[in-house]
Amino acid sequence: MTGELRPGELALPDMAPPDGPALRVIGRIRTPWAAGNCPRNIAAARDSGQGARIDLDPAFAPALQGLAVGQPIIVLYWMDQARRDLLRQAPRHVASPRGTFALRSPNRPNTISQSTVIVTALDIGAATLEIDAIDCFDGTALIDIKPWRDTVDLPPGFAK
Amino acid sequence: MTGELRPGELALPDMAPPDGPALRVIGRIRTPWAAGNCPRNIAAARDSGQGARIDLDPAFAPALQGLAVGQPIIVLYWMDQARRDLLRQAPRHVASPRGTFALRSPNRPNTISQSTVIVTALDIGAATLEIDAIDCFDGTALIDIKPWRDTVDLPPGFAK
Repeated sequence: MTGELRPGELALPDMAPPDGPALRVIGRIRTPWAAGNCPRNIAAARDSGQGARIDLDPAFAPALQGLAVGQPIIVLYWMDQARRDLLRQAPRHVASPRGTFALRSPNRPNTISQSTVIVTALDIGAATLEIDAIDCFDGTALIDIKPWRDTVDLPPGFAK
Repeated sequence: MTGELRPGELALPDMAPPDGPALRVIGRIRTPWAAGNCPRNIAAARDSGQGARIDLDPAFAPALQGLAVGQPIIVLYWMDQARRDLLRQAPRHVASPRGTFALRSPNRPNTISQSTVIVTALDIGAATLEIDAIDCFDGTALIDIKPWRDTVDLPPGFAK
């Protein structure tokens, strides 16, 4: 996806089709959100009080065993409406343009977004999982679920 | 990649080639690690005292602007030696087999691993970044760099 640039933005001049490994879409995230009403980040999604449901491909249901309600997980999802060619971006909330790797914008070479959320319900038989909040459109492709771990996911030296 | 199963492990009975979006490999992670000496997690990598270097595809160098030495970042990387068909796994460090989504094992439907690390040096002109530690083989494919953000990456209600 390409398009117009805001002042200060920079895109790759030419973008060959990506030739790395192919992802497997392992489910869909069901949310109340579409273009027009989608919270702009996970904090805003949480403030809305609206939860979300993950409909996992039933073939992967056994892979949910060992998760528990109340547990924090990291959800990885593919933002298929986002741009892959932006090197420097000027989102409205930052003072000056910034490199893509210094932003959490969905626009990035691989349009994977992630949030740390809480499991609020789990039905392994139905291959569904409910979570407290998420900031993506209804139907967004699920790429991975990982248990959040303080030893891996907190910056070293983070005061607990 | 497929292979033998340990007792209690479960694999997808058949695995069609993944037909989702293609990733772009945007760089390589240079580490002292190969099969045989690779730390089994980021804590062990950190204990080794060995840092690592990210060699970014030079086309993406401008996307580093705005990152700073000392900042925590999330690095996403593709574990190409890992299996994509495992639903339930029995790693040696857990008491009983557990679903893939309840583990941080590199074996998962999309073999993306991630660690939260510290930027220890940054050379935008050379498109390189040094980090305090990482637990992957030398030459591992880089998929993304994201700034770590407490508002997105801490579980809600986490005591700061």
